[in-house]
Amino acid sequence: MSHSQLWSNDRLAGQISFLVEIDKLKGVLRKTFLMDKSRLENTAEHSWHVSLMAIVLQEHANNPAVDLNRVIRMLLLHDLVEIDAGDTFAYDTQGYLDKEEREQAAANRLFGLLPEDQRGEWMKLWREFEDGETYEAQYAAALDRLQPVIHNYYTGGVSWKNNGIVRSQVLKRLAPIRQVSDTLWEFTLEIVQRSIEQGILGEDPIMKER
Amino acid sequence: MSHSQLWSNDRLAGQISFLVEIDKLKGVLRKTFLMDKSRLENTAEHSWHVSLMAIVLQEHANNPAVDLNRVIRMLLLHDLVEIDAGDTFAYDTQGYLDKEEREQAAANRLFGLLPEDQRGEWMKLWREFEDGETYEAQYAAALDRLQPVIHNYYTGGVSWKNNGIVRSQVLKRLAPIRQVSDTLWEFTLEIVQRSIEQGILGEDPIMKER
Repeated sequence: MSHSQLWSNDRLAGQISFLVEIDKLKGVLRKTFLMDKSRLENTAEHSWHVSLMAIVLQEHANNPAVDLNRVIRMLLLHDLVEIDAGDTFAYDTQGYLDKEEREQAAANRLFGLLPEDQRGEWMKLWREFEDGETYEAQYAAALDRLQPVIHNYYTGGVSWKNNGIVRSQVLKRLAPIRQVSDTLWEFTLEIVQRSIEQGILGEDPIMKER
Repeated sequence: MSHSQLWSNDRLAGQISFLVEIDKLKGVLRKTFLMDKSRLENTAEHSWHVSLMAIVLQEHANNPAVDLNRVIRMLLLHDLVEIDAGDTFAYDTQGYLDKEEREQAAANRLFGLLPEDQRGEWMKLWREFEDGETYEAQYAAALDRLQPVIHNYYTGGVSWKNNGIVRSQVLKRLAPIRQVSDTLWEFTLEIVQRSIEQGILGEDPIMKER
């Protein structure tokens, strides 16, 4: 069905198709639990939460000139590709092998619903996040990694325990925070340390020497 | 427990408390169903969706100088008060009687978790949305009203039917769209008309003259 058959304003019809399609992100489940442990978090509400985090924590960005408006836009749209590609768990090394390819195809299809000029803008923002070369993309990615750690701490590490995650994996995953914020990196080390002390996060198994 | 007992950086501790508390918005259910009708929408994912709507549909704002960055911030935070005050259904006239009082108390408690200087900024943005005097607040509010109509249309009007809502109620509720966008108002009239024609939305009952 062409857009013009959907709604009389052809340009708006494409935009509405896109807005209807992205509703599916509410059905993409992550591995993280809500703070009350009632259920898994979905990616739409995660995107909302991490966007508000970016606003609240802006003062802790090492770069005081960070363009928060671009950060927020990136965080709102960065996970849309999961509608087709699914949520790849942070510690799923197998899933990461073809993650980029799956996500690029998803971006082509989803942003392709938008009018042509707009499609380019959205694709560019999404690529900026993925490429991680600008400070804005790095700050956004750091928050995206910090958010589930806070959830894990306040839920007694339920997702870490369910998936057998240990300290070195978490610290490796969180390393990008160090590049963007001294304050948030100190907090990261503190929350990981407390998680270990409280038995929320496991230590690495001791490897036997051969 | 004071913030300083929570985390060693006292200012950050307040901000983290706030970010943990707002997770509860993911558990506040609206009357709107997801597009796939699998369940009711929660307010956190609604806030995400309507923020993206604001970006996608910006070109249709009658005021081309609309400050979209402020619109997005307002949309991300405008419903946080529902954590304490609950979602007041759009057509619940009883619930609207003390809505303002309940929501102001909620704003005081929630924004009160933030450091003092930040609290003021958040309260100001929330009040701007509530007061609806700036174009940005009016554009944000219009989208907040349009979003559930699109959901109703694409789900066969399940929420309208469940709650016995008819045409005049919907048009009254959507009237603010007319003030901010000619294009979106035309679309609104089209979606309401089609909903009537397809039996998705009911006509008003004919009142007998006395």
